Amino acid sequence: MNRLWIENGTFVTMDDSRPVLKGHMVVENDRIVYLGEEAPSPAPEGAQRLNGQGLVFMPGLINTHAHSAMSLLRGYSDDEALQVWLEQKMWPMEAKFTDEDVRWGTSLAVAEMLKSGTTTFVDMYDRMHIVAEVAMQSGIRGVLTRGVIGLCLPEIQTEKLMEAKQFAKDWNGQADGRITTMMSPHAPYTCPPDYIERIVEAAHELNLPLHTHMSESMAEVQQNVNEYGCRPVEHLDKLGFFSRPALLAHAVHLNDDEIALLAERGAAVSHNPASNLKLASGVARVPELLRAGVTVSLGTDSAASNNNLDLFDEIRLTALIHKGVSGDPTAVPASEALKMGTVYGARALGQEKQMGMLKQGMKADFIAIDADQPHFYPQTEILSHLVYAGSGRDVKHVWIDGRQVVRSGECLLLDESKVKAEAQRCFERLLAR
Amino acid sequence: MNRLWIENGTFVTMDDSRPVLKGHMVVENDRIVYLGEEAPSPAPEGAQRLNGQGLVFMPGLINTHAHSAMSLLRGYSDDEALQVWLEQKMWPMEAKFTDEDVRWGTSLAVAEMLKSGTTTFVDMYDRMHIVAEVAMQSGIRGVLTRGVIGLCLPEIQTEKLMEAKQFAKDWNGQADGRITTMMSPHAPYTCPPDYIERIVEAAHELNLPLHTHMSESMAEVQQNVNEYGCRPVEHLDKLGFFSRPALLAHAVHLNDDEIALLAERGAAVSHNPASNLKLASGVARVPELLRAGVTVSLGTDSAASNNNLDLFDEIRLTALIHKGVSGDPTAVPASEALKMGTVYGARALGQEKQMGMLKQGMKADFIAIDADQPHFYPQTEILSHLVYAGSGRDVKHVWIDGRQVVRSGECLLLDESKVKAEAQRCFERLLAR
Repeated sequence: MNRLWIENGTFVTMDDSRPVLKGHMVVENDRIVYLGEEAPSPAPEGAQRLNGQGLVFMPGLINTHAHSAMSLLRGYSDDEALQVWLEQKMWPMEAKFTDEDVRWGTSLAVAEMLKSGTTTFVDMYDRMHIVAEVAMQSGIRGVLTRGVIGLCLPEIQTEKLMEAKQFAKDWNGQADGRITTMMSPHAPYTCPPDYIERIVEAAHELNLPLHTHMSESMAEVQQNVNEYGCRPVEHLDKLGFFSRPALLAHAVHLNDDEIALLAERGAAVSHNPASNLKLASGVARVPELLRAGVTVSLGTDSAASNNNLDLFDEIRLTALIHKGVSGDPTAVPASEALKMGTVYGARALGQEKQMGMLKQGMKADFIAIDADQPHFYPQTEILSHLVYAGSGRDVKHVWIDGRQVVRSGECLLLDESKVKAEAQRCFERLLAR
Repeated sequence: MNRLWIENGTFVTMDDSRPVLKGHMVVENDRIVYLGEEAPSPAPEGAQRLNGQGLVFMPGLINTHAHSAMSLLRGYSDDEALQVWLEQKMWPMEAKFTDEDVRWGTSLAVAEMLKSGTTTFVDMYDRMHIVAEVAMQSGIRGVLTRGVIGLCLPEIQTEKLMEAKQFAKDWNGQADGRITTMMSPHAPYTCPPDYIERIVEAAHELNLPLHTHMSESMAEVQQNVNEYGCRPVEHLDKLGFFSRPALLAHAVHLNDDEIALLAERGAAVSHNPASNLKLASGVARVPELLRAGVTVSLGTDSAASNNNLDLFDEIRLTALIHKGVSGDPTAVPASEALKMGTVYGARALGQEKQMGMLKQGMKADFIAIDADQPHFYPQTEILSHLVYAGSGRDVKHVWIDGRQVVRSGECLLLDESKVKAEAQRCFERLLAR
């Protein structure tokens, strides 16, 4: 039995019944077994003890939309429109990706995410068995999915779907449950309707959630209307997409009816503010989504359109931008933005029973922040400080499933020097090919 | 003679003739005397040598709008409208500020700014001799100004103006020129027209630039129209404000005519994106200002409306938000955003001949960034990485006037532990009073 006893820490629990608590937390194997103001009694036998003074503990962050391997393309194309960026820059480079590129691009991304406090990431890409191997090794929690594009011959469509199903089946529940899977048509505009229906059917067959890109740009919504006579939410609804738990990345351009329908169907959104701003896609209607009761979580998208994977940046952006754009200074308060990065992220993945909060019985996925820095003073409104002044660089330690994966800012299960060197080598080879 | 020789570094110069350079830089006393790919020849005698491997050097950042002492009020009031925040929360607390509060609030702010790579800050506040003392001691470069509010009896107006003039005269050029001064009516809506004219007159008398808040909120513009029959730019123009070099904080709500007039008058703007978003003031028309040829620099405003003083955050926000809001992915490219934090900042302060670039003959105000981290890989487009992935927490060393003021993330001339403890004590006393 592995036991950890954190003494005299400040805990930002994300549990509304006691949001901030000073005291003690005990972890046994992969679970939080005690959290309280008083020292645990009797004292947990044989526990490793950690002095929490000067540290703020909170649930690990949950990044609900990423394409990790694309970290290799960080800075390769900036300040260009979505379609140019995607079709002229990203796709031609990605077409050259090998297993090695996916391995080291993903490793680079996972190192960055772990060090900045992300303990769970959703990854949509291909060569997903490599992504799964990196997740397994690095200690991160992953919700992984082979995203399929259906703009190809029927045989190829079928082949991709088989591959996606096989991956989803093989890896769901691996690494003591740390890895789970989803099924994903890439987007309504890259998958014909009948192909989306087959993917939905597969999700039913495997009892898995669905993930897709939706309504990222205005042009894409217009194209959907032109081709199918309705907007994307209605289109997906007709195809049965919302008959499964569904996670929609972006959802920038929604009308009121679409927001109401998403709420009714219980679909969740992954809001990707940095990527949406950088690609000039627009500003999602997050205050309206939250008001309608839609679960809104946060994603970084890839480092090729962000260009970092620090979820604290997304939290801060979310708390800031919707105020400025709506003219309402109460839009997306700090506490709500922090929930989007934790509790709502867990809910968007159907894992709210086991993560997103510090609470007895929950998985021990948590991070420790070095709060003894000028930008966290005066030490009063810690939750506000985390949102408006905090950064992934303030993260000191990270635990996932009760196992420490980052200590004093260094990854324990990934060889960072090797990851950086290999990623550099892969990128240079891609340029040369 | 103090000499520093940096070998094998990567230099982001902000000099368009050679934006990025790998090689060597030599500093003598307060100046850059050499920057080139080749090692300096002959080798500088008696120089301290620094291995630049893995570090990226760039000009120190220039924060053109701050109220440093207000760092004591970080997190004291979030998610409220500008007028409520200002009139019901900030002003009552600030009315209680003593010399001690200003000293430790400012010290806290300066520690945060130095550690995150800001080498020059503009500060508008009162008890400015204390702010000047902190600047003097900490090693930071300061452009300081006693901001005066004229909503008071004529005797008090005169008293404040005398105090502002005396401060500006006493401190201009102090600390080997590290401290300069300006004259500042707080804002058109807090200073009657004749009072603004007297301040302009004083600026002429002392040969100093002017600084003010302008057009931060829509309500304030409307009030100006109601009271004076014109919008703030025209109003200030009539009062002779632009007969001096002028720096305007915020300038969120401008029409086309106002932008044209600012360009014609050569006035500079301090864009404060985080504060404008957080207070729901709106999004300034930065792409239009830049196109019109107005010098646009960056400011954090205070930590009470931001809530941090990391200028990298403002740079990144500026590069992101104007794309998303305008729908134009080429709006404010990365290089332009970085110039706003460096070159354009220097220009806004009339100091472009001595700072804002790494170049022979310039002041040695520069920073070193630890670029050997996952979020800076692949190490290719370093300028893009600094803007879209960088943070003040990546700053390792800082030099101002050729003197090292931060080493490995620690302030050398400020006692950080004391600053944090005193700031905490001051805030708790303010709450209790």
